[in-house]
Amino acid sequence: MQHLESELHQLKQRLLTMAGTAEQAVNQAVKALVDRDDDLARGVRERDSVLDQLEMELDDSAIQLLSKAPLATDLRLITVVMKISRDLERIGDEATTIARRTIELGQEPQLKPYVDIPRMAGIGLEMLRDALDAFVTRDTEKARAVVLRDKEVDQINKQLHRELSSFMVERPSTITRCLNLMVISKSLERIADHAANIAEDAVYLHEARDIRHSGLPRNQSSSPSPDLTGAPGRIPATGQTP
Amino acid sequence: MQHLESELHQLKQRLLTMAGTAEQAVNQAVKALVDRDDDLARGVRERDSVLDQLEMELDDSAIQLLSKAPLATDLRLITVVMKISRDLERIGDEATTIARRTIELGQEPQLKPYVDIPRMAGIGLEMLRDALDAFVTRDTEKARAVVLRDKEVDQINKQLHRELSSFMVERPSTITRCLNLMVISKSLERIADHAANIAEDAVYLHEARDIRHSGLPRNQSSSPSPDLTGAPGRIPATGQTP
Repeated sequence: MQHLESELHQLKQRLLTMAGTAEQAVNQAVKALVDRDDDLARGVRERDSVLDQLEMELDDSAIQLLSKAPLATDLRLITVVMKISRDLERIGDEATTIARRTIELGQEPQLKPYVDIPRMAGIGLEMLRDALDAFVTRDTEKARAVVLRDKEVDQINKQLHRELSSFMVERPSTITRCLNLMVISKSLERIADHAANIAEDAVYLHEARDIRHSGLPRNQSSSPSPDLTGAPGRIPATGQTP
Repeated sequence: MQHLESELHQLKQRLLTMAGTAEQAVNQAVKALVDRDDDLARGVRERDSVLDQLEMELDDSAIQLLSKAPLATDLRLITVVMKISRDLERIGDEATTIARRTIELGQEPQLKPYVDIPRMAGIGLEMLRDALDAFVTRDTEKARAVVLRDKEVDQINKQLHRELSSFMVERPSTITRCLNLMVISKSLERIADHAANIAEDAVYLHEARDIRHSGLPRNQSSSPSPDLTGAPGRIPATGQTP
């Protein structure tokens, strides 16, 4: 049993390493965009396979651990790790999209200094760090705060989308560049979505309560709806050997 | 043990029901677009919660089954079901996106008859049906064929994207409509991606071979690379109780 615990600890550690890799990819992709650094962008694109590999390895370990873990709490932890790992891999994919679009943008003069994009990236990565921190420290309040912040990034993305649309109408010669920036903005919005997914998984894991799709936490209220507590079908926090 | 088998069978049946719901959502969203039927589009948007709910219920059953399944093959089946269920839920999200954009498009005259979009939807949904069929019948050849078709949809999406970009430059008054169509085209491309993910999971499940991220199956070759057979870390097809 102690052996299992140390293996579960290792699994979590590997997830955090993977998270560090994903965070770095996003950071570098956005830095490449802001600095117009094509080499850095190409590097991000090429290193995408690292996260793919990490996800597959983590999946393997997780499935092997499932066969050794009799408690529902452990089973839930392992499946949550697999889900988070998928989200991290997708964050890496979004970083690659940003890098590709950065390379395309490098072929034309810059439209204007980027303000909203680094801001969205900053919020999204802070959400990611907080979500993982909440997962590790079992801080569900922090996790709920992450879920709420997702709206902030959605708003910036929508606002930027509107601005870029108007810009395209006024100056059709900028259409290609505006489209690339729209894709990048959407990628950053998706990164925040993934961070929110991770936060929701952290709440589910530590409170045995599924806040996905409830519509509640992403609204104003940060307190859980009473009818979600002990929702039918959910495994209780303390699992039992069958 | 027989009881477990019947529960696993039930889990698969529920997944197929979920797949039917997802397929119907995409069909109706595209029909709403082609027929300019706002009511149908609104219906798709409102029924998105059905798939969300099905995913959560299926997750619950899956985690409860994990604690009863000692064999690695069963554990792998259950985790694959959870992954496919996530993909189906995402397909539902894309159907909702198509429905939303359809409602926006309904406010302006139609640009031109839609040809590529129903074609992409047709291929994507055929891929989805084939992928699930391959999952159920253990037909990995069929699954590999699905993975290969993903490129076809990518090509149509790229081509349509280029056409719409040129159209925007020529007639800036169409920019809003073109952007909505680009989003719809991208959603259909993502639906095909999810179908390809499901097909990859079917191969992984039945051959204990992970073809995700290998880059191989999405190239021309449909035969597996020898070095993927028995890749290190993969659980052998016949699992053992620890």
